[in-house]
Order: sequence, then C-alpha cells, then structure tokens
Amino acid sequence: MINKKGLLLVLSGPSGTGKGTICKKYLEKNKNVKLSISATTRKPREGEIEGISYYYKTKQDFEEMINNNEFLEYASIYDNYYGTPKKAIFDELEKGNDVILEIEMQGAMQVKKAYPEAVCIFILPPSLLELKNRIVGRGTETPEQIEKRFNSAYDEIKKLGDYDYFIFNNVVEKSVEEIHGIVYSEKNKVIRYKNEILDMFERELEKC
Amino acid sequence: MINKKGLLLVLSGPSGTGKGTICKKYLEKNKNVKLSISATTRKPREGEIEGISYYYKTKQDFEEMINNNEFLEYASIYDNYYGTPKKAIFDELEKGNDVILEIEMQGAMQVKKAYPEAVCIFILPPSLLELKNRIVGRGTETPEQIEKRFNSAYDEIKKLGDYDYFIFNNVVEKSVEEIHGIVYSEKNKVIRYKNEILDMFERELEKC
Repeated sequence: MINKKGLLLVLSGPSGTGKGTICKKYLEKNKNVKLSISATTRKPREGEIEGISYYYKTKQDFEEMINNNEFLEYASIYDNYYGTPKKAIFDELEKGNDVILEIEMQGAMQVKKAYPEAVCIFILPPSLLELKNRIVGRGTETPEQIEKRFNSAYDEIKKLGDYDYFIFNNVVEKSVEEIHGIVYSEKNKVIRYKNEILDMFERELEKC
Repeated sequence: MINKKGLLLVLSGPSGTGKGTICKKYLEKNKNVKLSISATTRKPREGEIEGISYYYKTKQDFEEMINNNEFLEYASIYDNYYGTPKKAIFDELEKGNDVILEIEMQGAMQVKKAYPEAVCIFILPPSLLELKNRIVGRGTETPEQIEKRFNSAYDEIKKLGDYDYFIFNNVVEKSVEEIHGIVYSEKNKVIRYKNEILDMFERELEKC
C-alpha cells in the first residue's frame, strides 16, 4: 500500500450558510482531523486562548512572517492582520492528518492559489429565503446590514465555479456525511497518487 | 434543490483483482443502482437469461446497431460481437438512477471517450503477489496462461493514469464503501452542477 498525505479541506461560502456549525460537527466526529488556527495582531478578548482561538502576534512579528512567506493567506481588516500560517498546516498534512480551514471567500481563493491540492468546498444555503431567515434569526444585525449581507450573498454564490465541491447545507448531519464522502474519494483519486502507486508495483515486481 | 442525473460508474482493472465481486456486493447494497447488461451475438448457454445475462442479438441486428451508433463500446472476440448498448444506460441515468458497468480495460477507455461524464474506477490488487495467488487460486488456467495473465496485469496497471479513481481491493466491504464515497462526492462536484445551481438561485431571486 502507499502512504497518503493529509488533505487540506477549505470550507467557505457566504455568511449565514452554517460553515461554522458544519466545521465543528465534522471535527467532533473525526478526532484525527485538525482545525487550522489563524494568527492575528488583534488583542485577545476575554475567554480566548492562545493557540486555540488564535495565535496572537505583534504587528512586527506578523509583518516579518509575511515577508518570510509564512502565510497561506492573510488580510488586513480594520488595522489588524489576520492570516493562516503554513507551518502548522503542512506539518499535520505530512503526518497524514487532514486539516480543515473555515474561511471567508477571498481567503479561500488565496489558499487555493498558494496550495492547489487544497479541496475547496462551497457551503450553499438550501434556498435564498432560508439564508435570509438565518441572517435575521441571528438578531445581531440592523435591517440595513441584513439587506446588504443578503445581496452580497447572492453575488458570492456566483463565484461557485471557483470551487471543487458544493454542499447544500440543509441538515447539518447530512452535510457532515457529504464532507466525509468527499474526503474519502479525494484519497482515491488517481491524479493524487498515480506515481506512488506505480512506484510501489515496480518495486514489488523487482522482488518477484 | 436541483435534480441530479444518475452517474455511470465504470469498474475496470486487470483480471483477478475482484471487479466482479465488488460489483455484485455494491449492487446488493444499493438496490436502486442498475447493472449495465451487454449485448452479444454468441448463443445463450444453459441457465443464461435474455436481458439478465445478455441481450442476445443476431449478427445482422448487432451490425445494424453498430451502424446506428447504438453502442457505448463494442468488440469482436472469436467471431462474436459483444457491446454495451447506450439506450438502456441513458434511460436510467435520465431517471436519476446510477448505472454500474464492469468491463475490461479497452472497453472502459472506449466508454470514457464516448461518454466523458462516466466515472472510471481502476480496481487494483493489494499487491502483485496477492494477484498471482488469486489467479492461481481460481484453478481454471494452465501455468503458462497464469504467467501470461500476470505479466499483462502489470502492463495494464501502468494504464492507471487514464482513470479517475483507484481502489486497492483488499477487503471487499471496504472497496464497496470507497465506491460509495466516490459516488457521493461526484454528485457534489461543482463542475457537474454549476449551471443548474446558479439557475436555481436566479429563479429564486426573481421571486424574492
């Protein structure tokens, strides 16, 4: 048999589609899958823990990491940096562990560009009405913000073509099962392991 | 949600890797999956049933079907024709049923060419030694035939790159589960359903 590297799973999609819940449930069910932790220059909030919520960095450290090409993606939002450090992810992939990364859509595309082997999954709402209800149901936004979010969600859905897989997130358990199927099948893709397999049989033939 | 067409699953690989057993078990576990039945000009043998073992055709009928482009693939073996009729398969796919086709490797490549949406799965032996044991274990072939079959198996494995997925057939239940994962994930592929999904959301937006 052959050794299989871990997969980097990128979960993205418009806000309100339930990426976070799917990610949490998937991790609960798959204990050897690691969650990618972001680095940030923003200050820790109450209850947040270094290395679990975020890796907290000074602005200087973060910029040094940028210069050393240590991020799969990063962005600057309201005077703070947020980014996905490569090292922790690549270490796990090498060990054969899968890593899951929940990220907004611009970040997802940066990751795909930096690491094309990443498997990008677009989480879709079952319907636009359902999406609207979910955004309203959060109760954290003004009607104006809700309208803006809803309109941008439709524009975001049009970017579906940049992704490998889609999931209509209707029932979270079903979505988790679908991710499971995707991971399984990606590890059976000829394009990922062709050379390893042919080498394996060639080595064996020499011994026959 | 969107309507999903059925998938055409093509199982192939060197002889002795257990394609037939996997196919049988997969059909047992997935009652709505249809098995593709070949057409042939050879005479029915005892116990064989029209429409289950084969569709039995006269030479004239078969050649008329060839001329009408009614086969996904066909071949002439020892004065008899064997072929995979398109119509029965396409009718099931349209109804949303998956169809499984177990076929030797040249036929598999003809199918892929005629119907690129087919999902081609290469069944691998866990090892060459295991393959040899299986061919010997059948007890149906002379030592010379066994040697020939074994050597051609290695050459056939080198064609792996033409396939979408591989499965190391070690434990048949595991292989069946892997096919299940492949089918699941293929139905979540953006490239298959992008237009249908975008149309669905657009129609909904008009109603919002």
